[in-house]
Amino acid sequence: MKVYKKAVLPLGFRANGAACGIKKSAKLDLALFCSDVPAQAAALFTANTIQAAPVKLNKKYLKSNRFFRAIFVNSGNANCFTGKFGLKDAQGMAVSLARALKIKKESVFVSSTGIIGRRLPLLKIKQAIPALVGRLSACGIDKAKAAIMTTDTFTKEATVKFYIGDCPVTICGVAKGAGMIAPHMATMLAFIFTDARIAARALKQALRIAVDSTFNCITVDGCMSTNDSVILLANGKAQNGLIDTGRSFNSFLKALQFVCSELAKSIIKDAEGATKFIQIKVCGARNFKEARNAGLSIANSNLFKTAMYGENPNFGRVIAAIGASGIEAKEENLKVRLGLLDKKEINICVYLGRGESEAMVYTSDLTPQYIKINAQYS
Amino acid sequence: MKVYKKAVLPLGFRANGAACGIKKSAKLDLALFCSDVPAQAAALFTANTIQAAPVKLNKKYLKSNRFFRAIFVNSGNANCFTGKFGLKDAQGMAVSLARALKIKKESVFVSSTGIIGRRLPLLKIKQAIPALVGRLSACGIDKAKAAIMTTDTFTKEATVKFYIGDCPVTICGVAKGAGMIAPHMATMLAFIFTDARIAARALKQALRIAVDSTFNCITVDGCMSTNDSVILLANGKAQNGLIDTGRSFNSFLKALQFVCSELAKSIIKDAEGATKFIQIKVCGARNFKEARNAGLSIANSNLFKTAMYGENPNFGRVIAAIGASGIEAKEENLKVRLGLLDKKEINICVYLGRGESEAMVYTSDLTPQYIKINAQYS
Repeated sequence: MKVYKKAVLPLGFRANGAACGIKKSAKLDLALFCSDVPAQAAALFTANTIQAAPVKLNKKYLKSNRFFRAIFVNSGNANCFTGKFGLKDAQGMAVSLARALKIKKESVFVSSTGIIGRRLPLLKIKQAIPALVGRLSACGIDKAKAAIMTTDTFTKEATVKFYIGDCPVTICGVAKGAGMIAPHMATMLAFIFTDARIAARALKQALRIAVDSTFNCITVDGCMSTNDSVILLANGKAQNGLIDTGRSFNSFLKALQFVCSELAKSIIKDAEGATKFIQIKVCGARNFKEARNAGLSIANSNLFKTAMYGENPNFGRVIAAIGASGIEAKEENLKVRLGLLDKKEINICVYLGRGESEAMVYTSDLTPQYIKINAQYS
Repeated sequence: MKVYKKAVLPLGFRANGAACGIKKSAKLDLALFCSDVPAQAAALFTANTIQAAPVKLNKKYLKSNRFFRAIFVNSGNANCFTGKFGLKDAQGMAVSLARALKIKKESVFVSSTGIIGRRLPLLKIKQAIPALVGRLSACGIDKAKAAIMTTDTFTKEATVKFYIGDCPVTICGVAKGAGMIAPHMATMLAFIFTDARIAARALKQALRIAVDSTFNCITVDGCMSTNDSVILLANGKAQNGLIDTGRSFNSFLKALQFVCSELAKSIIKDAEGATKFIQIKVCGARNFKEARNAGLSIANSNLFKTAMYGENPNFGRVIAAIGASGIEAKEENLKVRLGLLDKKEINICVYLGRGESEAMVYTSDLTPQYIKINAQYS
């Protein structure tokens, strides 16, 4: 397995980015990712009961359609809590793009991120489509990955190349994060592309497993977004023997997990206002879910997060957070080890003394800068 | 019903406070509350699965004993995650005090608040007992209420006087708060005293109802403490007709709710680093619990709390928090009204459009000062 810290699109994918004026800063705010041929799709969306219009639309299209051609994304506006107009606008994005690409509207995923509760400037988006479509290319990924950012300070990207039999296969992912990051089904936006040939069921299963131990193991602020989506497209262009079960599935899953893990960790490294990257290993749990719950309860504790910011070895806050998670850990079996707090990367180890399972959770510290960013953002 | 913003002990109660050296600052750190005669007791403790030694001991004594004489409290050390030694120390507090007061150890509640994971300096506490007991008085409540504080900047206290038939009855409460405040069963420490004559079952029921709509409706930081306790003593000295059910119960409950509500709101007003007192009214819910859940989900959202600090009308964060709570509110029925954000007191109104029930939740903003306090505290 060869690893790249950059997004390198697999065979048959092209992308582009543009600035259409949604962001007042005139920064890139439209991204387009396309597959030259219909691609299998698997997707996971936020568990928030208030869902943005594009999430609703994607779920609808996914019911009637299995093959997708494009992901069309805007940043700067979440198109959420925008009612019927919002749904119309999301549809408008899909329809206009489909027309320009001469494909079915149902084969377009749309995605939005940014402020909640404002109408999308659909006209600006439509006007930008011809140029966006006209200059699609493999290296357009560099613009596209930048165009999905909001408060992010760097792009999140990862690529792995590996073999299925003799056939080289690529998985490439890009993501955006920064704030309103909490683990529940899916988190933030992540778009993952592969040229692997893979059965529909295997693709969905691999995504579910990979997300569970990566994106669902991170938290910045415990706030679950209304727009969270992870979308994975597989276009089969690598022409490998079909991946279904067994060894080829395991190779694919391992590579996918690596990409998801890299993206998830990048999101934490760029967490709003963060000065620390905190890795919490919970072991001795009854099962993975219990381990993750304990880890996330610690990671979401404001008292723990501020202690980490202050490089303050207040392990009582770790203990209180474990107890608050509802896990019946016996005090006498519980062990907590805090790593070196004056480093940028902090390792916390927790042993629950209840079983053999473990989980790794990633989070950031809570800082005055987080407050500054979010006191002003709107 | 007559209301006092000060703690005025009911008939037959005395108190005192002392500095025994647990706090390095030499501030008051021991509080003693006594009833001259055995008092009915009702108590609620934290739902955190990691419980401090005094909480464990109180629960044990409550099983075998119905009448209590004293509440003995230290601040500066939580006596939590201290294992068998901690339990011995808590017992040591009860035994030593019982000896000095010539009462059974099982009629003493003990309570601790402060740093988690450090051994209690039992000897210092024991040495302070003679002076503490020797100068018990009704006005000693002023020292006692100050001695239970940790990061609190003012005392939390309330008294009401009302009539049961022709008989004047008093309920007086004191509390401590500031941080690690989150709603789950009970929160923080609150001690409530009444001279009412009331049936045991009625006393417990009244406390449960009162706590549910007051202490369980506040949150500072979503962090549930290991030491949270609300203890209510009723010594019958008012010699009113026994309160059991019906009108007298309702009068008692109303007065108790008022005291609990005042204390709960005081805790929020003194929340660590807070610049805002935020009142969230949720209506149109299916039931009270649903309304409270929605309110607490908003109140615990760091993004909402920082927006309030920044006086930023970002109502999308309110929407996202409601959705994150799991309540299936329909977007088109949901209404959010943000009050004037530049005031110290902010009123938020949320209408869920699902039913007729409502709840009021209180919280504070999240500020750089909260981080400063908690980055350093240990």
